[in-house]
Amino acid sequence: MRIIGIDPGNAVTGFGIVEGGSGAFKYVLAGTIRAPHNAAAPARLCNIYRNLTEVIARHEPEAMSLERNFAALNIQSAFRLGEARAIAMLAAAERGLELYEYTPAQVKLTVAGFGAADKAQVKAMVRRTLKMALSIELADDAADALAIATCHLFHLRLTPRRSGEASARRAGEGVE
Amino acid sequence: MRIIGIDPGNAVTGFGIVEGGSGAFKYVLAGTIRAPHNAAAPARLCNIYRNLTEVIARHEPEAMSLERNFAALNIQSAFRLGEARAIAMLAAAERGLELYEYTPAQVKLTVAGFGAADKAQVKAMVRRTLKMALSIELADDAADALAIATCHLFHLRLTPRRSGEASARRAGEGVE
Repeated sequence: MRIIGIDPGNAVTGFGIVEGGSGAFKYVLAGTIRAPHNAAAPARLCNIYRNLTEVIARHEPEAMSLERNFAALNIQSAFRLGEARAIAMLAAAERGLELYEYTPAQVKLTVAGFGAADKAQVKAMVRRTLKMALSIELADDAADALAIATCHLFHLRLTPRRSGEASARRAGEGVE
Repeated sequence: MRIIGIDPGNAVTGFGIVEGGSGAFKYVLAGTIRAPHNAAAPARLCNIYRNLTEVIARHEPEAMSLERNFAALNIQSAFRLGEARAIAMLAAAERGLELYEYTPAQVKLTVAGFGAADKAQVKAMVRRTLKMALSIELADDAADALAIATCHLFHLRLTPRRSGEASARRAGEGVE
């Protein structure tokens, strides 16, 4: 099972692809999509869409694991974050990827063992879980995306029969 | 100048196309895109994207006028609204449409003459301004979209040389 994890953001969107099943999890690819300097919202979203669509077409993940925030600093940042998330969801839907969503606390708890883990701890655990060579550089947002993807692999392993539906929150369920 | 106005929404997205310049404004088309029943977010956003992309390709507007909300009931509704707006912005950017944004109060003030106009008053003024035959049915969200498009035509008329930039807020300007 090949999963793409997405850490959607206003300025930077992280993505990370992992593979897993009953054996060890495997790192495939990770990176970040940065907004063009001073880009207006349409150009920024178009940039995320084109890059994500290309990564998905080239590496053919079967499902997307997306960070789901229930909190935002304020209404305006919620608008911005919703925009980046929408583009990721569209890219998934167009390629027929199943979408699963996890909160930041779920990701940290699953990957690092406790929900309040900091970025450095999550990154270290992701590197260890995926047995990543130290020569592979990993930006913070790319590490977060790998953590989100890895989180879904762990959930799949716990509930293999139903593709993680019992523990993972399927996109849109319960949303008004 | 042909403009598409968009009233982005969670369940229903309205769109309306108008034409105008120095003479009378002309109604071209209006309608609504409804979310499939019980659709999860990815399917809902994909549906908006495909329908909007098709309307834009077929009717070739030169610019998009989009409602910009500064307020939302809560963080969750801001996330949802941001999602629908992002899809509209992406559809505009992919076809190279200029994007202009107006707040609900700006639209009402421009189209109906006062910022606190209600939906019925806005709809009546849109029908009158565009000399729409009573036989043309107009859903509320389609009427709102026509009002948003018409609002941009009025702003263009006031500042014709710079394509409305002086009075209209170009998308993304001043956004962090």
